[in-house]
Amino acid sequence: MRQRTGPFWDGVQGRAPIPPAAATLGFELVDADVEAGTIEVAFAATEAFTNPAGNVLGAFLAAMLYDTVGPALLATLGPDQFQSTLQLNVGFLRPVRPGWIGGRGRVVHRDGDLAFLEATLHDPARAVVTTATATARVIPLGEAPAAA
Amino acid sequence: MRQRTGPFWDGVQGRAPIPPAAATLGFELVDADVEAGTIEVAFAATEAFTNPAGNVLGAFLAAMLYDTVGPALLATLGPDQFQSTLQLNVGFLRPVRPGWIGGRGRVVHRDGDLAFLEATLHDPARAVVTTATATARVIPLGEAPAAA
Repeated sequence: MRQRTGPFWDGVQGRAPIPPAAATLGFELVDADVEAGTIEVAFAATEAFTNPAGNVLGAFLAAMLYDTVGPALLATLGPDQFQSTLQLNVGFLRPVRPGWIGGRGRVVHRDGDLAFLEATLHDPARAVVTTATATARVIPLGEAPAAA
Repeated sequence: MRQRTGPFWDGVQGRAPIPPAAATLGFELVDADVEAGTIEVAFAATEAFTNPAGNVLGAFLAAMLYDTVGPALLATLGPDQFQSTLQLNVGFLRPVRPGWIGGRGRVVHRDGDLAFLEATLHDPARAVVTTATATARVIPLGEAPAAA
């Protein structure tokens, strides 16, 4: 397999610092199948993400799903490309406690610079806690600072 | 105006600790109009929320929107009630830098224990950076630990 470069691979392979937001969420790349457009990631939910009941606030689950669909697409892009998430739709199925949270993301369809994405988060018992669909746009890396 | 109590008002009025997740997002209640079902909040986005371009990662904007629609509904509830967000749909309009981010949330419609909510986040220049719609369920406070 050829060496992949670019902002995503440089980050997960240690050639560039992991982005601050990803580090805050305890993001970790577990596996990526670039040809299939699938990615497996994990997050470390801390007590700082919890609601008064001690569960991870859905706010942070939405954040983790955003940081699952984005990397699923980023992993498939060239070194001079980046992506901008246009919309994210999250369904909250089950509560989850702080600790390890797994994520699976997938590029469902690419149509030119538009991509349709989906992701799920699961707890250590592999129960699905949240699901998401998203749309994103592939952009030149140089446009990333001006993108939402 | 009568004294309001319950998990939301106790938190924002200092009678109970602010929930960890809200503190992490720098949540602050600015104003709430319980009769109109509207709320005005603010967040403090730190460098820990940023992407490599230095903008706040949309992940954390989604988190802030979750923590705007929820409080909009919570503010209208009785002291023995809580809410569970079922679904959150976020649109990302503009990039925003770390710092002050304002939020406005609204209960659009209540139908029994279901609530339809909406929210926007804006930057210091009052430009809208993200929008969201959400659906939530009103639940007894005792059921909060088992709710998503």
